[in-house]
Amino acid sequence: MSRIVMKFGGTSVGSIDRIQNVSNIVKSVYDEGHEVVVVLSAMAGETDRLINLTKDISDNFSPEEYDVVISSGEQVSVGLLAAALNENGIGASSCLGWQIPILTSNDHKSARIEAIKSELINKILKDKKVCVIPGFQGITSEGRVSTLGRGGSDTSAVAIAAAINADYCDIYTDVDGVYTTDPNKVPEAKRLDKVSYEEMLEMASLGAKVLQTRSVETAMTNNVALRVLSSFANENKEDAGTIVTEEDAINDQRVVTGVTSSLNDCKITLIGVRDKPGIAAKIFSSLSENNINVDMIVQNISESSRTTDITFTIPKDDLLDAEKIMEQIKDDVPYESLLTDSNIAKISIIGVGMRSNAGVAAKMFSILSENDINIDVISTSEIKISILISNEQAEKAVNMLHQSFILDR
Amino acid sequence: MSRIVMKFGGTSVGSIDRIQNVSNIVKSVYDEGHEVVVVLSAMAGETDRLINLTKDISDNFSPEEYDVVISSGEQVSVGLLAAALNENGIGASSCLGWQIPILTSNDHKSARIEAIKSELINKILKDKKVCVIPGFQGITSEGRVSTLGRGGSDTSAVAIAAAINADYCDIYTDVDGVYTTDPNKVPEAKRLDKVSYEEMLEMASLGAKVLQTRSVETAMTNNVALRVLSSFANENKEDAGTIVTEEDAINDQRVVTGVTSSLNDCKITLIGVRDKPGIAAKIFSSLSENNINVDMIVQNISESSRTTDITFTIPKDDLLDAEKIMEQIKDDVPYESLLTDSNIAKISIIGVGMRSNAGVAAKMFSILSENDINIDVISTSEIKISILISNEQAEKAVNMLHQSFILDR
Repeated sequence: MSRIVMKFGGTSVGSIDRIQNVSNIVKSVYDEGHEVVVVLSAMAGETDRLINLTKDISDNFSPEEYDVVISSGEQVSVGLLAAALNENGIGASSCLGWQIPILTSNDHKSARIEAIKSELINKILKDKKVCVIPGFQGITSEGRVSTLGRGGSDTSAVAIAAAINADYCDIYTDVDGVYTTDPNKVPEAKRLDKVSYEEMLEMASLGAKVLQTRSVETAMTNNVALRVLSSFANENKEDAGTIVTEEDAINDQRVVTGVTSSLNDCKITLIGVRDKPGIAAKIFSSLSENNINVDMIVQNISESSRTTDITFTIPKDDLLDAEKIMEQIKDDVPYESLLTDSNIAKISIIGVGMRSNAGVAAKMFSILSENDINIDVISTSEIKISILISNEQAEKAVNMLHQSFILDR
Repeated sequence: MSRIVMKFGGTSVGSIDRIQNVSNIVKSVYDEGHEVVVVLSAMAGETDRLINLTKDISDNFSPEEYDVVISSGEQVSVGLLAAALNENGIGASSCLGWQIPILTSNDHKSARIEAIKSELINKILKDKKVCVIPGFQGITSEGRVSTLGRGGSDTSAVAIAAAINADYCDIYTDVDGVYTTDPNKVPEAKRLDKVSYEEMLEMASLGAKVLQTRSVETAMTNNVALRVLSSFANENKEDAGTIVTEEDAINDQRVVTGVTSSLNDCKITLIGVRDKPGIAAKIFSSLSENNINVDMIVQNISESSRTTDITFTIPKDDLLDAEKIMEQIKDDVPYESLLTDSNIAKISIIGVGMRSNAGVAAKMFSILSENDINIDVISTSEIKISILISNEQAEKAVNMLHQSFILDR
């Protein structure tokens, strides 16, 4: 007997038929004799519908009340699934965030889980019932409803798995695992049987949409064994899916595990910035104060003049805000002009094997060069290399890198 | 400064525009310096949408989970209104049933309010904020979400008004008060300035849809001053609406205050029932055990034979269930045949003045007789007389009675 947390996303519970399907999947696991906790998102489309209601009231909708409104979506799906399980002959009870409780920080709309009490969940499991919990929500120390921000249901599932010492946290989604690259774009993409937390973390933050970054972090910190499974395929579960686990648990380690591509960033270049100490700090602290995440940064060396060019990338959604901020700091950080470019793609290769394999970057750059793909910006970490190229060449780059690194062994 | 509970129904919060309208009404009352608590229903149509989801899962949907699903509707409307009030420049905070808490019995889907803690509401009012509370919901002693059954928001409002010692409980609805009869059918209908709790109770249970019966009961028990006001009309509030209050507070008392008509009942007649003690008890206890409310009962006197005919009325919705039950008890209660009739109308005249005015029933019967309206069944209480007639004659009967009793003074 294992203790298993099963998490299903909005698409998996997007209609009554799909909720019945989830009920059958949960039943098959429960019938094997396991203790089962289910974590759900809102029915697909529901969160957007609720967000639109709040936007119709005000662009400046109270964050506290936003969480009250939006969290109702998950409340509906857990009630429906718990009743569907009953109908399916299984004892089940929903447990809302405030009932457990799932305690979070006071940051409404993007709260962090701080503690999860396990008593009520354990009691329900002891009664041989399935416990059905809404993802994405909790309560603050002030007793108000909070939400974790979009995609937070994965994080809820992992945090609950950690709190109740679950053996597995199974993330059911509309794909059947983690792939070496996006299988919709590269038919040769292979499903990975196992991937390390570190690799998954890089892949999640670099555009692989299978798991939410914070959920992988939480799994890594708490050493929760994550499995990515499909809620649609009808496969033998033993053979299917991807296990996200510790690096040591992976025998057959490739040098490069995955290739990702993201079109979500844009590039800002400040031309002719006066080159003196503290300038970079001023620029990037003003962005971070406004919650704009800067990803890649390049500063060209200035030789002849006392000015330099600074290039950085940020999410496309934040471009207008970032331009405003750059305008505001112009008195403190004099620069000649500002260029923006949204037609860029960030291509990354990821693999813990890079640590012990020299020459991966060199090989990457020569593959791209052979294919006439110009590299704009480079950024590296221990287990990944990211480059910025023109978005028109993204598909070609991913195909070439995937072919060379993943398939050439 | 008064302390006022303002309750708005589903139609009043049925769209973003209407929520903004409610926000303006609340603001106008708040700006007069009053302490304001708002109680809301779910947005019109939302409760039905949620109920349909539960029906699609199962005809036998778990009552506990039903309450979890359905209560989400009010959660959305309170969040939206609280934020709209903020947008309108007024401090406001939503307070869900479990936050207050509103403690109820364990009867899921039709719970009764048992206690309401006033601390949180008082704290919000002390902070000069409007407190926005979802009607219709609470939590059980087991800490699970409960709902009061349909229309329960009125009851929530009155119970909250009693708990916090409010000066008024204002029920905002889509009509501007309580009328002598349905103004949509009888143009001569007059709005009543004041009506007694007892009369309102009879009118509510006899088909006037302005207030829910249980809410009037709760108001009467706790002596809460109820006002029925329109959330659409833009009248001077002092002149408008109907006050539901104690009989003694009404100076200008008519003999008949209102005429109501209801098409919601059907009639069942058991022909040839063996006439012996305990038969009636057996019939009606079997119905009551199945939560079927019997209204009027007539038993014809048997003269020549040892059998009798028993006629009673029940809500149309329960007809199929009642027929099944009558079939089941046939062994214990032998009868020859069962007749049903859904083409009936119940017409009632109500007025506390009847207590001290003889001849009201005689006048009623002669008016009907003069108009060739045949009376099928009669039932009376201290302050009302109800009759059953053919539904084709309902409109005529109401018009004639209204004309004679209400307008002939």
